[in-house]
Amino acid sequence: MKEPTICPKFEKAISLLSQRWTALVIYQLLSGPQRFSEIQSAIGISGKVLSERLKELEEKEIVNREVIPKTPVVITYSLTEKGRSMEPIIRTIESWSSKWVPLETE
Amino acid sequence: MKEPTICPKFEKAISLLSQRWTALVIYQLLSGPQRFSEIQSAIGISGKVLSERLKELEEKEIVNREVIPKTPVVITYSLTEKGRSMEPIIRTIESWSSKWVPLETE
Repeated sequence: MKEPTICPKFEKAISLLSQRWTALVIYQLLSGPQRFSEIQSAIGISGKVLSERLKELEEKEIVNREVIPKTPVVITYSLTEKGRSMEPIIRTIESWSSKWVPLETE
Repeated sequence: MKEPTICPKFEKAISLLSQRWTALVIYQLLSGPQRFSEIQSAIGISGKVLSERLKELEEKEIVNREVIPKTPVVITYSLTEKGRSMEPIIRTIESWSSKWVPLETE
């Protein structure tokens, strides 16, 4: 088999977006900084998995975790510049899906 | 847990794109109709998996399979209108990745 000709950067981006829940977490954070519980109830994800995804997205510098020193302490999650720059991806998926994806089970 | 507020059509589109190889196959077909072996060598996928993915994409009316009655018979794969309409998604991922994805192992 020949060396694949697909750009490896594109492949990496696809593999990031392919991970279950990742795109949904980014989508949800486009509406602004949120607490863990807000993200969780908006996308219907288990706490364990959300916690893993947020950690990975922090490592990839897509999500920023901020600890606000109140009593009790408040932790919010928001998109970094890299994360916000994914908005056009999310919006084109959204607009394609609203036109082409049927609502019935496929 | 509350009912999730994420649009189910968006979730379906994400789940389609999330499947390993699917976005790469669509990316590859954006350059025009191709034979099985051309797609395979361009993206470095096994024949078995490519055959499964193409069948799924045909079922979802994203890919069209055309049999050209020559000797030997020629089979080409191309994007349907629904498939071509995913081009903005693929292009925004491509442009984001060229700016933000490091080439080193992450």
